Amino acid sequence: MNAPARTLSGADGLKRLSVATPDQPLRLDSGRTLENVEIAYETWGELNADKSNVVIVCHALTGDQFAASPNPVTGRPAWWDLVVGPGLPVDTDRFFVICSNVLGGCMGSTGPASRKPDGTYWGTDFPVITIADMVRAQIALLDRLGIENVFLAIGGSIGGMQVLEWTVQARDRVFAAIPIAVAARQSAQNIGFYETGRQAIMADPNWRNGNYLAEGVRPERGLAVARMAAHITYVSESALKRKFDRRLQDRTTKTFGFDADFQIESYLRHQGQTFVDRFDANSYLYITRAMDYFDIAAEHGGVLGNAFKGLHTRFCVFSFSTDWHYAPEENRQIVRALNAAGCETSYVNIETDKGHDAFFVEEPEFWAGLRGFIDAAAGARGLPKRSAT
Amino acid sequence: MNAPARTLSGADGLKRLSVATPDQPLRLDSGRTLENVEIAYETWGELNADKSNVVIVCHALTGDQFAASPNPVTGRPAWWDLVVGPGLPVDTDRFFVICSNVLGGCMGSTGPASRKPDGTYWGTDFPVITIADMVRAQIALLDRLGIENVFLAIGGSIGGMQVLEWTVQARDRVFAAIPIAVAARQSAQNIGFYETGRQAIMADPNWRNGNYLAEGVRPERGLAVARMAAHITYVSESALKRKFDRRLQDRTTKTFGFDADFQIESYLRHQGQTFVDRFDANSYLYITRAMDYFDIAAEHGGVLGNAFKGLHTRFCVFSFSTDWHYAPEENRQIVRALNAAGCETSYVNIETDKGHDAFFVEEPEFWAGLRGFIDAAAGARGLPKRSAT
Repeated sequence: MNAPARTLSGADGLKRLSVATPDQPLRLDSGRTLENVEIAYETWGELNADKSNVVIVCHALTGDQFAASPNPVTGRPAWWDLVVGPGLPVDTDRFFVICSNVLGGCMGSTGPASRKPDGTYWGTDFPVITIADMVRAQIALLDRLGIENVFLAIGGSIGGMQVLEWTVQARDRVFAAIPIAVAARQSAQNIGFYETGRQAIMADPNWRNGNYLAEGVRPERGLAVARMAAHITYVSESALKRKFDRRLQDRTTKTFGFDADFQIESYLRHQGQTFVDRFDANSYLYITRAMDYFDIAAEHGGVLGNAFKGLHTRFCVFSFSTDWHYAPEENRQIVRALNAAGCETSYVNIETDKGHDAFFVEEPEFWAGLRGFIDAAAGARGLPKRSAT
Repeated sequence: MNAPARTLSGADGLKRLSVATPDQPLRLDSGRTLENVEIAYETWGELNADKSNVVIVCHALTGDQFAASPNPVTGRPAWWDLVVGPGLPVDTDRFFVICSNVLGGCMGSTGPASRKPDGTYWGTDFPVITIADMVRAQIALLDRLGIENVFLAIGGSIGGMQVLEWTVQARDRVFAAIPIAVAARQSAQNIGFYETGRQAIMADPNWRNGNYLAEGVRPERGLAVARMAAHITYVSESALKRKFDRRLQDRTTKTFGFDADFQIESYLRHQGQTFVDRFDANSYLYITRAMDYFDIAAEHGGVLGNAFKGLHTRFCVFSFSTDWHYAPEENRQIVRALNAAGCETSYVNIETDKGHDAFFVEEPEFWAGLRGFIDAAAGARGLPKRSAT
């Protein structure tokens, strides 16, 4: 355990902690080390006396640390305030909730948009990182905060990858884990979708071989295309049909041109255009690359169950019936491995037409499942019961 | 019927016929007309005495007229010589097979890469066309060839859209029709995938607002990304896993960089890079736009069955179990409408892991289905039996 943490708060108002220094560098899977690493984070609720009520929320690819309060930089609302808050499944009246921006991200944590010690931007000199490296930085953050044990690690999509990695890496420190809409290994199809996005970014002349920040430009058009290509995979075909089908956008007849005639075109263009205002293109390259490299079994002799052998963590895996980005079957592979490893394991497949992004949006059956598992785990951990509501 | 056709053969060696002139322009769904339209085409087999053995093969988005013989311009092999040829399901020993490059295409037919009467390139001055317009041009081609009736119209994907449109537009002239792996209306999801590709092309500074040919450049990087985004949808998740899974490309360890570490990355990059050598970016915009606009029911009072009412054409619809670009259910909607309209209709769903592109590749059960339906139709039409093989 290190000396008491000193929270750095930059001109941007983001809370940060230094988690690696020249004396204590972060060792990466690539073999490289990072000597100056800051992790930006937010917390909600109060740490209890025996520090047994800590919840780690892990964010998804384009998320940030603002799970339960608005982002002061972008002005966007909290991304998970349907799940994290007073009286909600992740109950900030009882738990001390920490969410940090991933290593390689662009909301205050060290990443390719940060400056090197010499004052220049990292850009593509930043080392390629893995999900395990992200979790290493999160564990270092907890060390700096003086916290040893985690009651619950929870997250969806790449956040779910981090949850799995937390249980594997911080073996005896995680009491309960909720990986949501995830896989234990990135599929060829998903590598393909993200590779398409990376090629779109790298094809943008404003990418400048990754040096765009130094040159005062940004590959906005490429990044917008990357976002469009990915966003389609986050929504189910049936939800696209329900929400948009073939309806026209602000017009009654086709224009016989290349404007956004259809609502689905307008929607995707909007997704792309608004994304570039809040996200760094190089961060997108690095985080998607970390997802590509994610394959827990490969690091445990090719057998996924080996990764979880001997764990006392209790798991509840959630999937969504129409999720084709991380399909139910990919989640069930995790459940089978957990069972093979003898772990205490629940599995819930939520019937919904909302696809992969269902965990962000209104899904009462999902919330009920979270609530049930979390409250039971809290009871087993000796934490207070939920207040009557 | 017009005067006997005069085949134009350009310096490129492609066979072409003029199908619209200032006197007889092509009237388009947009309300615009095209006065000078040439359609490039190929034929195989011999037209019989009563001209009753004509087969129309309709090509897919990135296809061309070289269904059964190599393309002399690109040097690529025939794209359907597993299906069209002597003794094959579409038997060139018995049938006179015609395949033409679609209106808006870039293999000799008039499109955005063609020159206007004033000698400048069409570019994005070319009118936006529909699938119906493509079929109008094909019907005009048959008129010029002195052919009234079609024994069989066959094609997959956007080729299947043309087949459906053939039966609707040339009502009494098509004896049998085989739409393969298609839908009667483009879904929001598919509009989204192609819109992503269009945005990638239009984001490329070398697109020059569509005027790149005049300026001597080509938006190759944007077009390559568009191809990658689309290509993923043509292959099933299970086939990607079987063919590539997470295997590395020409290396034993990850490079921790952005090279194509994985075979799937290398494969998609190759698909993108080779595509730009043979395809015009504006053609890609126009043909995908025609697909977006495809919705037969919308043009028939919102009821698909109305489009087919009273048709004497016999249909056989084929779908592939793992096709998620035009899923079996989308094909079954066509089958239900055909049945509701009282048409003679067969339907075959082929069990395969090969996804949408299964119709291009080895799929013996598919070929057997084609053979059975085509031979029965040929018998009903009084055409000679297949030679014993």
